[in-house]
Amino acid sequence: MSKDIVKPSILPGFMELLPADQLIFNKMMDIIRHNYEKFGFIPLDTPAIEKSEILLAKGGGETEKQIYRFMKGDTDLSLRFDLTVPLARYVSQHFNDLTFPFRRYHIAKVYRGERNQKGRFREFYQCDIDIIGNGKLSIINDAEIPTVIYNTFKDLGFESFTIHINNRKVLNGFFESLDVTNKVDILRTIDKLDKIGKEAVVEELKNLGLEDSAVERIMEFINIKGKNDEIIASLNNLGIKNGMFKEGLEELTQVVNYIRCFNVPEKNFNIDLTIARGLDYYTGTVYETILDDYPKIGSVCSGGRYDNLAEYYTEQKLPGVGISIGLTRLFYQLREAKIIGENASSTLSQVLVIPMDNCIEQSINIASKLRENGIIAEMYSEDAKVGKKFGYADKLNIPFVILIGPDEVSDNKVTLKNMHTGNQETITIEEAVALIKK
Amino acid sequence: MSKDIVKPSILPGFMELLPADQLIFNKMMDIIRHNYEKFGFIPLDTPAIEKSEILLAKGGGETEKQIYRFMKGDTDLSLRFDLTVPLARYVSQHFNDLTFPFRRYHIAKVYRGERNQKGRFREFYQCDIDIIGNGKLSIINDAEIPTVIYNTFKDLGFESFTIHINNRKVLNGFFESLDVTNKVDILRTIDKLDKIGKEAVVEELKNLGLEDSAVERIMEFINIKGKNDEIIASLNNLGIKNGMFKEGLEELTQVVNYIRCFNVPEKNFNIDLTIARGLDYYTGTVYETILDDYPKIGSVCSGGRYDNLAEYYTEQKLPGVGISIGLTRLFYQLREAKIIGENASSTLSQVLVIPMDNCIEQSINIASKLRENGIIAEMYSEDAKVGKKFGYADKLNIPFVILIGPDEVSDNKVTLKNMHTGNQETITIEEAVALIKK
Repeated sequence: MSKDIVKPSILPGFMELLPADQLIFNKMMDIIRHNYEKFGFIPLDTPAIEKSEILLAKGGGETEKQIYRFMKGDTDLSLRFDLTVPLARYVSQHFNDLTFPFRRYHIAKVYRGERNQKGRFREFYQCDIDIIGNGKLSIINDAEIPTVIYNTFKDLGFESFTIHINNRKVLNGFFESLDVTNKVDILRTIDKLDKIGKEAVVEELKNLGLEDSAVERIMEFINIKGKNDEIIASLNNLGIKNGMFKEGLEELTQVVNYIRCFNVPEKNFNIDLTIARGLDYYTGTVYETILDDYPKIGSVCSGGRYDNLAEYYTEQKLPGVGISIGLTRLFYQLREAKIIGENASSTLSQVLVIPMDNCIEQSINIASKLRENGIIAEMYSEDAKVGKKFGYADKLNIPFVILIGPDEVSDNKVTLKNMHTGNQETITIEEAVALIKK
Repeated sequence: MSKDIVKPSILPGFMELLPADQLIFNKMMDIIRHNYEKFGFIPLDTPAIEKSEILLAKGGGETEKQIYRFMKGDTDLSLRFDLTVPLARYVSQHFNDLTFPFRRYHIAKVYRGERNQKGRFREFYQCDIDIIGNGKLSIINDAEIPTVIYNTFKDLGFESFTIHINNRKVLNGFFESLDVTNKVDILRTIDKLDKIGKEAVVEELKNLGLEDSAVERIMEFINIKGKNDEIIASLNNLGIKNGMFKEGLEELTQVVNYIRCFNVPEKNFNIDLTIARGLDYYTGTVYETILDDYPKIGSVCSGGRYDNLAEYYTEQKLPGVGISIGLTRLFYQLREAKIIGENASSTLSQVLVIPMDNCIEQSINIASKLRENGIIAEMYSEDAKVGKKFGYADKLNIPFVILIGPDEVSDNKVTLKNMHTGNQETITIEEAVALIKK
């Protein structure tokens, strides 16, 4: 041993996949991208490293503790912890070069130095879309966003999932009507309902100093369930006069109606008065997406409407609505639950071309022809016994093998073996292309 | 103004694009990816942050000075500066889970704290492919790699480009035959030929202490030009008995022959005895790719054969061959030279659906139908004058607009306007789909 070997390993909290899983991961990312593009969102790419003063302009909270921040020379740098702050910076910086409403998608890695625990990642992909208005933004966008969610998760292969929808104005207006002041604390408590249960929520609300009657009304309110139209009817029946509540209810009603226009089935979206999302950011519609068969995974796609995207970087008022899919975490949880990843293939190749008795040039020729016909093909170029060559196709799970030996060359044919059925036939390259494509 | 505004900006040396350019950039990345996949390379994704002890295992040189390295808690972290070291670490770490030859592609950002200058980036995309063998790797792979380069650059839209090919054994064997000892210094000097010119090379070689006769033979050698077969003939005619030279010449001859089998036109690859590439890494075939009409850009795709990918992480012998396209730099230079990016579109959308007189629901319906037919469509949802709505399509360069007003609704038709020709006709949605797809 000529030198010291460094044991190869990665940092804890970082995800790295073997080929079979990587292919599934990328497939999911492609489906998300395809759906985002179908709705006319355009891709953005911003630096993963930004000035700390930019990323920390808002400051405070968990973010600052978790951020990867460091000096390079005299420059104070940070790795982005989400794609929203870079979007705010981008739209402010390039305001005059953009056309509004600005529809962008961004699929990229973000970084958070979270406490190391199973299922939590320090580097993870976010897949975001946002529609940013200049000054104002129609409520129709609030209905289009869940339509993108619906199409995306359907294409990802999920049958049963529910997009939970709420409106922060409904919540805020309701609390105003109760004449309570600590709305943020109440929202934070309600947001924990799924985690800690009703009794604990009641307890916490009382600890916030709320009157029993107020706690009772809150619990009644968040207990309003049913079909979308039933919930809207119940909310109307509350007879609340508060202006913000009325505005929120009107928005919620419109959003539900427009979502129907977008052909999202009724079973895939449901008003849920218990969700609030990011407490100091969202101002109207909010979304969470639950896989009905795996509720424990939590929301797999969340977001909402905000009044002011970029208040730290510009005086322009930029309202928007958007969502984010945390792909790394979603993948991890689906994989852990064995919903995906069993018996996966470790290759994209559809055919392995195996030269026999040194028929290399003819094999290269066949591989080229396959590729010209849009088939992903590779050739086994190594000098090895035929069993090893087939073993390579087997291990990677390549569906077809083409053998090229002297007989095939002289007959101008190929021997095609279906690796799943074991069937083998000697046919023309055109016939082989047709069979493989089938 | 309610709070301090932080002026939005990014760090110097980082690239960020406006939508039109971003779309071109992504298109190029997609073409590269598609070609890499066509040849059966599978995608990998490794963390952008690794342990410093991993990334710096080799140590020394410019790398260490340029690396973004920092502490997070007690952990010494670095951002990757290329995709080769992470590949070496990955293959060593997951050796038992991989099937060899291991063909992977990796398209991702890497980081180098380079001196700030025009056209140099501190964050940039590399697009790599490598084929890694377990213990050995056939020379045929050395011919397949330039085939991938050829297909990729052709698909990127380039007509005239030349893949320059050399073999380090030919160079090393030749120097051995001259009985000179400081091969590395000589190589480094020859590598500068394009930059500093012949006379300066002669001067430097003499300064290395070489005899005049040796310098003369070297200059003769690197002056061997012509068609591939002519160069091979000239090399054979040198009558050099050195074993390494003979081995290299045999490899070079084989590579040229196999590249022909792969259908790469003769004008797109040429032996070039002056290229050497990374001095302590490549051991056999080396490649550089020059755009014939833009030689000043330098090599746009380079790489080669190496004996031992991962000697710092494993005792396994892992020979390989690979290339890298520095996409960020390539894009920048093509853009600067106005080869790309003029009159580009700022959207992927093929149609903008404009609701007139509040025909929102019907417009949503039409937009959904377009998407179901594989057309990228968006709806202008904002409340605005019709001129502003058309202005949006104009600014983004959306090729078609569909108008939906009461007449269209009652006739069950759509009004389709071709934004380039100005033609406008009222037709069925099926007719509109057909026209847009055309």
